[in-house]
Formats: sequence, C-alpha cells, structure tokens
Amino acid sequence: MGKKVGRQTFFLDSPVYIVGSSTIAGAKEKEGPIGKYLAHTVADDSLGEDSYEKAERLMMEETIFNAIKDANIDEKDVDLLVGGDLLNQLVTTNYTARSFDIPFVGVYGACSTFAESLGIGACMLEAGYGNYIACTTGSHFSTSERQFRFPLELGNQRQTYSQWTVTGMGCAVLSKTGGGPKIVGVCFGKVTDYGISDIANMGAAMAPAVAENLYNFFKETGTSPTDYDLIATGDLGKLGSDILKDLLYARGYTLGKNYIDCGHAIYGVDQKTFQGGSGAGCSATVFNSYIMQKMRDGTYKKVLFIATGALMSTTTNQQGDTIPTIAHTIILEA
Amino acid sequence: MGKKVGRQTFFLDSPVYIVGSSTIAGAKEKEGPIGKYLAHTVADDSLGEDSYEKAERLMMEETIFNAIKDANIDEKDVDLLVGGDLLNQLVTTNYTARSFDIPFVGVYGACSTFAESLGIGACMLEAGYGNYIACTTGSHFSTSERQFRFPLELGNQRQTYSQWTVTGMGCAVLSKTGGGPKIVGVCFGKVTDYGISDIANMGAAMAPAVAENLYNFFKETGTSPTDYDLIATGDLGKLGSDILKDLLYARGYTLGKNYIDCGHAIYGVDQKTFQGGSGAGCSATVFNSYIMQKMRDGTYKKVLFIATGALMSTTTNQQGDTIPTIAHTIILEA
Repeated sequence: MGKKVGRQTFFLDSPVYIVGSSTIAGAKEKEGPIGKYLAHTVADDSLGEDSYEKAERLMMEETIFNAIKDANIDEKDVDLLVGGDLLNQLVTTNYTARSFDIPFVGVYGACSTFAESLGIGACMLEAGYGNYIACTTGSHFSTSERQFRFPLELGNQRQTYSQWTVTGMGCAVLSKTGGGPKIVGVCFGKVTDYGISDIANMGAAMAPAVAENLYNFFKETGTSPTDYDLIATGDLGKLGSDILKDLLYARGYTLGKNYIDCGHAIYGVDQKTFQGGSGAGCSATVFNSYIMQKMRDGTYKKVLFIATGALMSTTTNQQGDTIPTIAHTIILEA
Repeated sequence: MGKKVGRQTFFLDSPVYIVGSSTIAGAKEKEGPIGKYLAHTVADDSLGEDSYEKAERLMMEETIFNAIKDANIDEKDVDLLVGGDLLNQLVTTNYTARSFDIPFVGVYGACSTFAESLGIGACMLEAGYGNYIACTTGSHFSTSERQFRFPLELGNQRQTYSQWTVTGMGCAVLSKTGGGPKIVGVCFGKVTDYGISDIANMGAAMAPAVAENLYNFFKETGTSPTDYDLIATGDLGKLGSDILKDLLYARGYTLGKNYIDCGHAIYGVDQKTFQGGSGAGCSATVFNSYIMQKMRDGTYKKVLFIATGALMSTTTNQQGDTIPTIAHTIILEA
C-alpha cells in the first residue's frame, strides 16, 4: 500500500514503470523545437477522413496501438485503458476505446487529463489491478477551435495572449514490472479559481492552480525546485509560466533553469502561436516524446510533471462564470 | 493488493465500506416509487438560481455536504473527490469541486459515471490513497434537455421509446474502515456498439453493453444471477431491460425477480416518462437511497450494481455515427 504524505501528496509503495510510450502529432508540431522527438507526425491533419473529429480518433487509435507495441506486449495484455480528451462527452476517447478489446474508464480534467490518467493508472496498479494500464490523451486544433471558439472558416483574429491548441496524441503504458522511467508518486490538485473569465487567457487562469499544487507539494514533501532535474508544467504558455514564477516566488520558491512549460516549449516564436501550445494533447505529446526520451537516456533523473486544466465550458462562459482550474503533479524518477 | 479474476473482474483485498450516503432529487422523482427513500427533494428545480446549470451545481454541492455529514466526518477528512456529470466539460462537478477544499479527479462515463466513480474510488483506497473518498454524480432534466435535445420552451413531443432525464444527485463516502454496505469488487466494462444511432433509444443502445459486462462477470466468477439478492442496472428503462433479459437469456443466464432497473424503478407508469428515467443522476439517486437503505436494513446482502452509459455527443450523432456504450459492475455485500 502507498502512503499519503499530507493532504495531497501520495507516494506509491512500489514504483510504476512507463514501459511503453508513443506520440502522433501534426505538421505544425513537427516544425517546432520538439519536432525531432515525436515518434510520428502527419502532413495532413484530416488524415483523409471526412471530419476532423474522425481524424482525431484515428490519431488516438494509432498512438495507443504504437504505445502497446513499444511496450512489447499485445492488446490482450492491457488490463485497463484510462483516458480522455477535450471534445464534449469525451467522444474521441470513447469512440477510440470501441476499437480496443480492453476495459475502459474515461477521465476528464481538460488539459490536465494526461497527468490525471497517469495518476489514476499508477494508483490502480498499486491496488493490484492487473499488470498493464495504458493512459492516453490528445487534442486536435481543428476540432477544438470549432467546439470552443469559432468555425475555422471565419478566419477570426486571435488575441496576442492566446495559445494554439496542439494537434497531438500521447499514450503511455504503465506496469509494476520492467525498467526505465518510473512514477513514484502523485499530487492530485484542488480546483482553484482566481476570477479570470477571459477564455482566451488560459495561462493566467491556470497559473494559480499550478502555484497552489506545487506549493503544497513542496511543503508536504520538504523538497524545493532545485531537488529536481526537470519541472515541466502542462500548458501555461509563455505568459502563464511567467505568472506562475511570480506566484511561486511570492510564496518562497524560485523556478530556475530546470523549469520548462510544455506549451511554451512546443512551438518556436516564429510559428505565431503567440503564447505557445495548449490542449490536452500538448503535455501528453511533450511528455511522451521529449520528456520520456530524456529520461530514458539519463539526462533527467528526477522529474515533476504538472499538467494543468481550465474546467469551464462555452455555456458557463456565456453565463458569465469565471474559470475554475486544476493541476495534478506526477513525481517521476529515471 | 487486490486480485484480477479473468480479463475484467477485480476483487479488493479488503473491502471498502460505504460509510456515508445522500441524495437530492426533484419533485417528479419524489412522486415516484423511490420517492420515500430520497433523503432530500426540492419543489422548485431551479432552486431560485438564475440558470438550471447553477441549480444543478447547488444540488450537487448540498449532496456532497450531506454525504460527508452522514459519514460523521469533516470536509478536511476527505482525501479525494471523484465524480462527473452529463454537462459538456463536466461543468457541474468541476464548479462544485471549486467549493470544496478536497483534491479532485473528474471522470466521465455518461450515465455509467456513478459506478465508474465507485470503482475508481474503491481501487484508490485499496492502493492506500488516504482514508475517505467521496464519489458523486448527478443530472438535471432541464440542463440535459437543452444540451442534448431541444430547448424546453419548444415543447417537443417525445418518442414512446424515450426516457426522462432524472433531476437528482447522489454521493457516497467510501472508507477502508467502518461498517455497513461494502464494495468487494468491480468489473470495469469495455466499449460496446451494436449499431444503434437513434439517440432517443438509449435503452436499446445500452442493453448490449450490460449484457457483455454481466456475461463476462458471471463467467469469470463462476456465479449466476441467483447468487445475488439484487441485480440493479443503471438506466436501461423498461424497453432496454427487456432487451437485456433477452440478450442474457440467449447466452444462458436468466434475470429473475431479483432484477430491477433503476430507470424503470424510479418513475411510476402514470408519470408519462414512457420507458422510465435516465441520466447520470438516475442510478446515483436510486443507489444512494433505495439500494443503500435496503442494504443497511439487511433486506439485500449480495448486490450487483451495473450502471450503463451511452457515450455519443450531439456532434457525433449529427455526423451519422452510431452510439458506443459501456457498463461497469460494482460488487457489493451487506
């Protein structure tokens, strides 16, 4: 049995290894700084399907298939699939799960979904639930834009403080046995709301959730940012990560050169995404490419992966509500 | 550590007790056969709020508060809140979680969400994740109708094979210590799709998922329907439960007098809901009222609770997709 340390942090009794991992992303992601670490990319993000929704599903299906292959196991060895996505009623993941003969639980934490999946998956294995659990999340620029913002055909101008939804999928296969990067603990977040209501300004809305989560985690574990080789937040973007640094600094912790934000890292400044990437696929893609490879080759040994989510809907936004946000931290060691 | 029995069934090493439980439902639910078992009901389902969405949240907030009270603990004793609802981006649960100082994970399985929450919650406790986990789910007729079907003001006629979304919330508090009804295992479902595309005919779409799940469960455990005092499915409604009986009979299992469907049970035939209730709140409400009370008073000792979910969205439906469905079974003993 694992052990709760304080209110939020939970350490596993025995670690959970990430024995398989894969990604598929789009052309824009391939052109960015993370591009060379991506296992697969597609030139046409419609994949020849008659809707972007179907293309998104196909990308997730292939990613799960490839991650299972990377783990050197078969579909029938996977005990549980845990995952979610940004589309209403999680239709990408639900329809994808239909293609696999694997028990399935859907989870949702907006852009924090990948960390949530890893956290739940790791705890399920700690409970003895089988040998292998696959965790998957993703997003697609074109389906997200039309669901959350405007039809692409309108060619709307974007705010300078906005982010670009990543077209990308990630899947990680967890196991109690094996080697390589491992999950040693998880710090599930509380829902935080600092009163931001501008849905283009996700970084400002989500930064306080990360600040709360990391502050509580450092306090509960008696560690500080310098104890980790890499601290990677989900998708705060440039503006959001600057806000996070300020918020944590005010509470006594300094994020230094070992800190990156997946949203800020995934695109180059010349790619005109303004603050960087966002979407459930952003941190899932960076985690399953750059972070996994750098942990496998020994560059990073102790890692904190904190994915963040903005939990509003277009309905609550139109009704004048502010944006509740959340952040979950996964504690990793190589 | 618990033990996997076959592909889907998982038994906990030590049981998880349901130490607190509560419900709030609407006036129509109060008038039905389950009415007298409901802890709280409201006469006006807007609760004086300026939107039904806000009323739905307030109902969930009160239900969690009352379940924690029923468990004789404080909010600060609850280690994790697990829950979800039918609204896009789970906004009812996400906004409700904002009111509690409790780590939170959002889950989604449409009307199967309550069983999914119980299953994940029980496994998290088995993993050693703290002492108390609260699981909550609900739905509201008026918010669901306008999100999934038509604005209420249109007064659309309903198909005779349709069901009525329950206005109701349920919350159960789980613990490794205590007494009363207990969860001994869980059988997470696989996504099933028999090609139904009529979103008014949820019973027909979901019945095959229950049939698959129960068939695999009976086979893996070597048990049969007569081994249980009560088998309660989520919300197949009258038509869906008749289809389930036929599907299981064809595979060698007969559901007899110990079988009820929460959707069929919650309304009387004179209430003109046609096939009965549906919605994530349907099974959550019946479970946390009738089933809990009948387990607490010793009427039912061995119970299977199978909540079912239809996993489509209005987008996938308009794009011509069929309806993927899922069912999760919770194994309970008094």
